[in-house]
Amino acid sequence: MSNQRPVSCGLDFCAAPDLNNCLFTANSSKYEFICVPLVHPLFKREFVSGSAKKRAGPFTRPDIVLCSSDWNTLIIGKLSPHIKADSKNPSLKKNSEETLKQELALASHLGLVGVTFKLTKGIKENANLSRIICDKVSSMCSLQVWIQVPMENPIKQAYSYREEDCGKVESPWEWWNAFRIVCDYNRKLGVALIVSHDLPDQEEIDRWLGEPVKCLIFPTTLFITNKKGYPVLSKAHQALVKKFAMLEVQFVLTGQNRYQSITYYHNYLEYLWKDCESDGAVERYARGYEDYLQCPLQPLMDNLESQTYEVFEKDPVKYSQYQTAIYQAISAVRSKSEDKSRKIIIMVVGAGRGPLVRASLNAAKKANQPIKVYAVEKNPNAVLTLQALEKDLWEDKVTVVSCDMREWNSPENADIVVSELLGSFGDNELSPECLDGIQRFVKPDGICIPTSYTSYIAPVQSSKLYNEVRQCRDKDKHSLAHFETSYVVHLQNNIIMLSATITDNSRYDTKVFKVRQNSVLHGFSGYFDTVLFNNITLSIKPSTHSPGMFSWFPIFFPIREPIQLKAGDQIVVHFWRQCNSKNVWYEWCISEPFPGPIHNPGGRSYTIGL
Amino acid sequence: MSNQRPVSCGLDFCAAPDLNNCLFTANSSKYEFICVPLVHPLFKREFVSGSAKKRAGPFTRPDIVLCSSDWNTLIIGKLSPHIKADSKNPSLKKNSEETLKQELALASHLGLVGVTFKLTKGIKENANLSRIICDKVSSMCSLQVWIQVPMENPIKQAYSYREEDCGKVESPWEWWNAFRIVCDYNRKLGVALIVSHDLPDQEEIDRWLGEPVKCLIFPTTLFITNKKGYPVLSKAHQALVKKFAMLEVQFVLTGQNRYQSITYYHNYLEYLWKDCESDGAVERYARGYEDYLQCPLQPLMDNLESQTYEVFEKDPVKYSQYQTAIYQAISAVRSKSEDKSRKIIIMVVGAGRGPLVRASLNAAKKANQPIKVYAVEKNPNAVLTLQALEKDLWEDKVTVVSCDMREWNSPENADIVVSELLGSFGDNELSPECLDGIQRFVKPDGICIPTSYTSYIAPVQSSKLYNEVRQCRDKDKHSLAHFETSYVVHLQNNIIMLSATITDNSRYDTKVFKVRQNSVLHGFSGYFDTVLFNNITLSIKPSTHSPGMFSWFPIFFPIREPIQLKAGDQIVVHFWRQCNSKNVWYEWCISEPFPGPIHNPGGRSYTIGL
Repeated sequence: MSNQRPVSCGLDFCAAPDLNNCLFTANSSKYEFICVPLVHPLFKREFVSGSAKKRAGPFTRPDIVLCSSDWNTLIIGKLSPHIKADSKNPSLKKNSEETLKQELALASHLGLVGVTFKLTKGIKENANLSRIICDKVSSMCSLQVWIQVPMENPIKQAYSYREEDCGKVESPWEWWNAFRIVCDYNRKLGVALIVSHDLPDQEEIDRWLGEPVKCLIFPTTLFITNKKGYPVLSKAHQALVKKFAMLEVQFVLTGQNRYQSITYYHNYLEYLWKDCESDGAVERYARGYEDYLQCPLQPLMDNLESQTYEVFEKDPVKYSQYQTAIYQAISAVRSKSEDKSRKIIIMVVGAGRGPLVRASLNAAKKANQPIKVYAVEKNPNAVLTLQALEKDLWEDKVTVVSCDMREWNSPENADIVVSELLGSFGDNELSPECLDGIQRFVKPDGICIPTSYTSYIAPVQSSKLYNEVRQCRDKDKHSLAHFETSYVVHLQNNIIMLSATITDNSRYDTKVFKVRQNSVLHGFSGYFDTVLFNNITLSIKPSTHSPGMFSWFPIFFPIREPIQLKAGDQIVVHFWRQCNSKNVWYEWCISEPFPGPIHNPGGRSYTIGL
Repeated sequence: MSNQRPVSCGLDFCAAPDLNNCLFTANSSKYEFICVPLVHPLFKREFVSGSAKKRAGPFTRPDIVLCSSDWNTLIIGKLSPHIKADSKNPSLKKNSEETLKQELALASHLGLVGVTFKLTKGIKENANLSRIICDKVSSMCSLQVWIQVPMENPIKQAYSYREEDCGKVESPWEWWNAFRIVCDYNRKLGVALIVSHDLPDQEEIDRWLGEPVKCLIFPTTLFITNKKGYPVLSKAHQALVKKFAMLEVQFVLTGQNRYQSITYYHNYLEYLWKDCESDGAVERYARGYEDYLQCPLQPLMDNLESQTYEVFEKDPVKYSQYQTAIYQAISAVRSKSEDKSRKIIIMVVGAGRGPLVRASLNAAKKANQPIKVYAVEKNPNAVLTLQALEKDLWEDKVTVVSCDMREWNSPENADIVVSELLGSFGDNELSPECLDGIQRFVKPDGICIPTSYTSYIAPVQSSKLYNEVRQCRDKDKHSLAHFETSYVVHLQNNIIMLSATITDNSRYDTKVFKVRQNSVLHGFSGYFDTVLFNNITLSIKPSTHSPGMFSWFPIFFPIREPIQLKAGDQIVVHFWRQCNSKNVWYEWCISEPFPGPIHNPGGRSYTIGL
């Protein structure tokens, strides 16, 4: 969680005859903005073939009641609820279309940051509404649309459905999903989630974490009174707030005030919000990188910069784990050794600026064991640092070798080889290819640290990431390449739908996932874990993530088109790791529930250079 | 049907120890080409980590046994059936991969036009095979792959499945469909359909008509002996050949010869093929335009060329129907008229080079009725022709008006207004907008010809059309525009999945279609029919198409991504006809079985100019 900014909570008005009054009420009770009808609820307009029938006076308040900076920052406009753009009644439909266009034009004229309306039906009954919204919003430069979506289908709440019938009631998430697809994932559409009294299943809540939820709407009836007489939320609702705090949501309070002051609600929500803040090392490091697509490092092909080394050397967990593993490896070698006094040979391959050399020396000191370290590094700039350390500090305990490990001829064989060549997806920084050449210089009973590693994949739903990738596409001529590239990304606005399963080290593997609820597949996230030695491990798998370790974000493999999943479907995904003499790359495709094209065939869109 | 070219029939050999012998046999029996194994069936190769184990001698015949033009034109190479690129056994898998690559490289070296292999499983067990095929074929310039697909799943044939279980057996069409999707609709992949003894349902056969079927494979066991002792096919199989003749397929004969000469089979297939030829007016006119995407004419915005008028004036049906309708309209006007001797006023709006003026004069002559014709035309070049005709031929019976009908002020009101402004989709050449202005010059009881018209849409499966549209995309920067444009196209390699339903004249309509079998949706075809007057009609709807009329091909509305349909699904499609002061355009989107984006929002990709 990364919310640094203060809470932002709006107050909803069902009518606003005097806007300045409303703003005064809200501001003096600490609320940051208000939601008001754009037009008085009783003021329905009649349009005949597109032109408004002349009525006495204007159809709503004039713009001069507020200064424009207030319009721009303090007001969310509510569209008239009597708009039925998909009515079967032609004149009601026509009137609704014109009303809608008029209100959107008004919101744009006033410079509002957003308008909002409530979604109450599936797309089949909302296609015309979505078309108009999408069309108008696309042409209005900054207007956002917050689509209010209830957490539960009102039908489900109104009737006491039998358990087995519940699945047949369309969830409001489906309404939203279809609406935004028809609007082609327009970035100006966001969700204002109306929090329900009885919360749905955890899974159903989590499904919203992959969506652009901008706002949680709290009816005042959700609040209960605590011992001191103040409004608070149930434990379940508190947990909900914490989950969504990651997405930097805002809040809106709606309904009748039941306390002495409406400020009480704001105070409580502010308290909850602050409680969500956290400033662990990972969060500090990752701040600003949420859902930001980065190209994976290519430390083999490119030479890393000093700054990059510096960032990664600060990981508080990784090198301490390495040091423990090396310590245990030294003990293991010594216990088998006949000559206890001989120096143990450690090769650090890919030594960078020396953190693993340091870990080796520390481990040896702790084990009271003389060692000889070869620090092999191909980046001549990093070698300068190593050589300085060798001269000033390490002296004859360390020999710096300025050489690509694949070409190095070692003068002796190693007891222990230590490397840190793993990428977010395990082998994506070409650890296997790099270590191939070193194998011949390892003693028959030598130890490799890490001992093993495993890659994992999991299907991901994230309209945010989909849109990020797609935006790249729009700017670029080679339209497919961005969907055939893997990214390193600090996943935030997403839901990993299923527990990850293992993909072994082979060059081609097929994985199967069961879909538990209707959802959308936007791609796959990749992780790894590794056994450094014995039971010393590192992991970026969500379920076993090494606490506090920030060296790796997950990898993300997008797919070209989102796939609509139904509960009970099976996802079958195929992953290949391919190589030729110059490059390594991944290819991937889906064969179920619907077959899709192979992504990145022949490495056409991205490769990892050898 | 448009096959002008002679039959092309190949002969299949299960082994070809002497290629020249095989070719001699085939050619002397009239066969146009042969299918032979690329490598002797018993010659399995062992590869160890990518390099062929040295065996005594080469792994197949050398290229010099044939001259290269023979390799290029007469030989289809069969891949070894022991290739199991998706085997769970790692060494069998590795060997298969290397064998496959070796054989594809050989086929490319020899310059074969194509290779072929048999598909026996779904994509889940064929993903690796498809990846390799797709990868290699993409990089080999001209090699085609004919994928042999049985018409029926062998499981269904082998066991006597109960009727209700049959649906659960995956159809081989699904194997093919998934295979080519994984290969991203690679144009080099074609289908070689293995004709079965018991043919599947008509619908299942028709589903293949939307696919790139290059070849029908006939086992000799399919043939029955007629009274004269020659091999013939059953009526059902004959009907099959006729259907596929439209797609310009080739044939391959496989299996043991059961007659005195293998030529007999060829003779019979040649006889069937010639029988499929037809040369009606429509076919003559349409030849070469099969599945060719054309932009719809914009006769309002652009002035048609002389040649275009000439082509359309040749329609043998359209103007004869118009003449009959005008004749009946004249009779109707006269019967109501008190002054039987007065001239009936006919306005031909959009007169072009005069075919409807001619039809009017002919009708009046037949009815023995004096008339006065106003011929209104906006194209100044066509007006030249009209004025020449007026002067030389029509004299005072006709007044040519050089004017856009929307701006014309008529000196008198019409008894009959005749126009031919309809496009393939009815109103897509802006007939409503054009006729709006004329209405005020029609007598209260005046007659409009046409009296009414109706647009129809139907879902279409056609990988050919999908690929045609996509190819446009690949060449163009604005990648989406081609999928948001309507095309006029002589549909050939497609299947219209469902009976078309009516879309009325309103500006927004929603249509629902039931899906009867698993299939792929690539877009929608559009048609119209019109009542000229009384029961005189014109139609391009497939079920009621006016025989011999060639003036209109259907319209095609593509969709951005093919949608995989399952039997029982429902397609819900929304169509809008939108306009502003300068343009008219269509928008469309699908809301079921999966929602999709609105196509052509705001007319961003194509419009029809007013």
